[in-house]
Amino acid sequence: MLVLVANLGSTSFKFKLLDMSSGGDEVARGGYERIGQAGSEFATHGDVIDVILKTLPKPPDAIGFKAVHGGPISGAVRVTDEVIATMEQFSDVAPAHNPPYIAAMKAFRQKMPKCPQVAAFETAFHQTIPLSRQVYAIPHDWTEKLGIRRYGFHGASHRYIATRVPELVGKENSRRIISCHLGGSCSVTAIENGKSVANSFGMTAQSGVPHNNRVGEFDTFAMLKLLKQGLSLDDIFKKLGKEGGMLGMSGVSPDMRDIEKAAAGGNARAQLALDAFVESVRSFIGQYLVVLGGIDVLAFTGGIGENGIAIREAICRNLHWAGIVLDPTKNQVRAKEEKISKLESNAEVWIVPTNEELIVARQTEAVLSQN
Amino acid sequence: MLVLVANLGSTSFKFKLLDMSSGGDEVARGGYERIGQAGSEFATHGDVIDVILKTLPKPPDAIGFKAVHGGPISGAVRVTDEVIATMEQFSDVAPAHNPPYIAAMKAFRQKMPKCPQVAAFETAFHQTIPLSRQVYAIPHDWTEKLGIRRYGFHGASHRYIATRVPELVGKENSRRIISCHLGGSCSVTAIENGKSVANSFGMTAQSGVPHNNRVGEFDTFAMLKLLKQGLSLDDIFKKLGKEGGMLGMSGVSPDMRDIEKAAAGGNARAQLALDAFVESVRSFIGQYLVVLGGIDVLAFTGGIGENGIAIREAICRNLHWAGIVLDPTKNQVRAKEEKISKLESNAEVWIVPTNEELIVARQTEAVLSQN
Repeated sequence: MLVLVANLGSTSFKFKLLDMSSGGDEVARGGYERIGQAGSEFATHGDVIDVILKTLPKPPDAIGFKAVHGGPISGAVRVTDEVIATMEQFSDVAPAHNPPYIAAMKAFRQKMPKCPQVAAFETAFHQTIPLSRQVYAIPHDWTEKLGIRRYGFHGASHRYIATRVPELVGKENSRRIISCHLGGSCSVTAIENGKSVANSFGMTAQSGVPHNNRVGEFDTFAMLKLLKQGLSLDDIFKKLGKEGGMLGMSGVSPDMRDIEKAAAGGNARAQLALDAFVESVRSFIGQYLVVLGGIDVLAFTGGIGENGIAIREAICRNLHWAGIVLDPTKNQVRAKEEKISKLESNAEVWIVPTNEELIVARQTEAVLSQN
Repeated sequence: MLVLVANLGSTSFKFKLLDMSSGGDEVARGGYERIGQAGSEFATHGDVIDVILKTLPKPPDAIGFKAVHGGPISGAVRVTDEVIATMEQFSDVAPAHNPPYIAAMKAFRQKMPKCPQVAAFETAFHQTIPLSRQVYAIPHDWTEKLGIRRYGFHGASHRYIATRVPELVGKENSRRIISCHLGGSCSVTAIENGKSVANSFGMTAQSGVPHNNRVGEFDTFAMLKLLKQGLSLDDIFKKLGKEGGMLGMSGVSPDMRDIEKAAAGGNARAQLALDAFVESVRSFIGQYLVVLGGIDVLAFTGGIGENGIAIREAICRNLHWAGIVLDPTKNQVRAKEEKISKLESNAEVWIVPTNEELIVARQTEAVLSQN
């Protein structure tokens, strides 16, 4: 089965065509940016699809979407009207993610009505998180009836880590994994015996660790100070969701490489942003050490996780008491599957380049083979 | 010097009269509840003051307020018009706390114009928290100009722990303390060499660990789901601040004793609320283990911290890898200054009944002796 995996952002469309008959070999890949922006040749995600379908060497047998927020609908499921309607209901809390997926699902339907579609939700891997780590301390009706709870995201990436790490170090040495997916958006997950038991995202993908331009953890009641300044709710949510994160703190850029350069050049706000980012990642490592009762493997993935030499070193600083000792020499590596801890480290530290598309393609194949 | 220490809530007024010439001996104490509520004999905090002043065996030489949120004004300071004006500016984010203090400061001024007043802010002890743990990932202007950052509260209580624990176990054995103040409101603090280096509260006292009826940690963007239901902003903040926390989760009561009783009787929501509370406290212990690079003393204080036998046991579960081993037998104690860890525990675990009034009285004396 040839699965076309679609990985969408509000202005981007990345895809891979994977051949599942050979375990997921890549047949084709591509990516388009700036969709719908001024001067772009693509007005909509649908326009991109036309080009992709012309480019592919062979037509796909199925389309798998790395879908984000389906609220009560999670797991990997066939895309139906009900699935799309539910995603629409959750577009308000996933404004950068749900709308482009919905648009692409509808466009593919129109262009390839016979080709089955599967939505592999980013929340799926986190369905095993215990209820006591899901709930907020809010009126219980809000939890039960409105679905206001911690969902967790980046499920495809963390699931990949959960399956790949045991292949690298053996199942018996990977009972307790802390997986750090650090990129444009960032999250940390506690994995116990292959299952997610905690994730740093909350109800939405704007929470947890600070992201490129999204706020991460915030005190909701601080909003009262902003409202008193005359800012509208729309302004506040827009700024928290688009002008916060590393961009807001640093004032330099949403891109970690730019911020590191600025900090090296003496920009104090850039340095503060880096320090605060590292503090946040470390705080989740601490939380998950307690959740897991210690650690066997600390894994870094995502653009920053795979390439951020200085950031990995800062994150691992002074964790020897927990059995984590990074090897600064081995750590001088980028985007390579490699062990970077010292021999005397009780826990192994690894860089594991993620493969979210493979997970989505596997889930797509599994769903379609059941039906 | 006789210091009258005022500890106020929106409907309560507790006080102690301490004799600082003898190191803080208690000369008198008292408390009033339900102020301003239907059927109460006290319409305002001012009415209570009249009664207290008549009751006291001797008139105070100074009044010390366990004040809460002064935004940019922290530490212990003489109460001036500027201090009151700044507290008024922060009443929006400290609605349960700032207004009664402002009312009481004004009433004492009128009734005892010659008696000096000192505000010992709950944020004071936390001024030593590094900037990288204070900032949110928001536009930097909001941090700098609007004061939107993590302040930390419960400063008087955590400062008491920071001074008392070294007296109990020796300075060399108390370099790294994690202090859990668990009561009607709850916070966890990391104390390094006597100084606060992290606290679980954020910008406001509604954040961090779930409180009796206040939400604790929440995803701000989840609010979009509530707004779409037609709830007004006022409703949302009111529910998060008064019908959240242990009350919201359990549906039983804001009081931990009621919730424990209900859970023991088979109420699943009450059990979930207890479990989520314990998870939250443990998550901050994990964060602060990383902040401190391990731990020498874990201290419990506050109504729940001092009396909650089962909760302490649940919080300490499976922390032996971090050197924390509770002694379940020694733990069978309430409201007593006592070590409750096993001999083999690397970190000592203590119950330390707090004495916030003593800290406020000391700070009051110190400020007045400087002026």
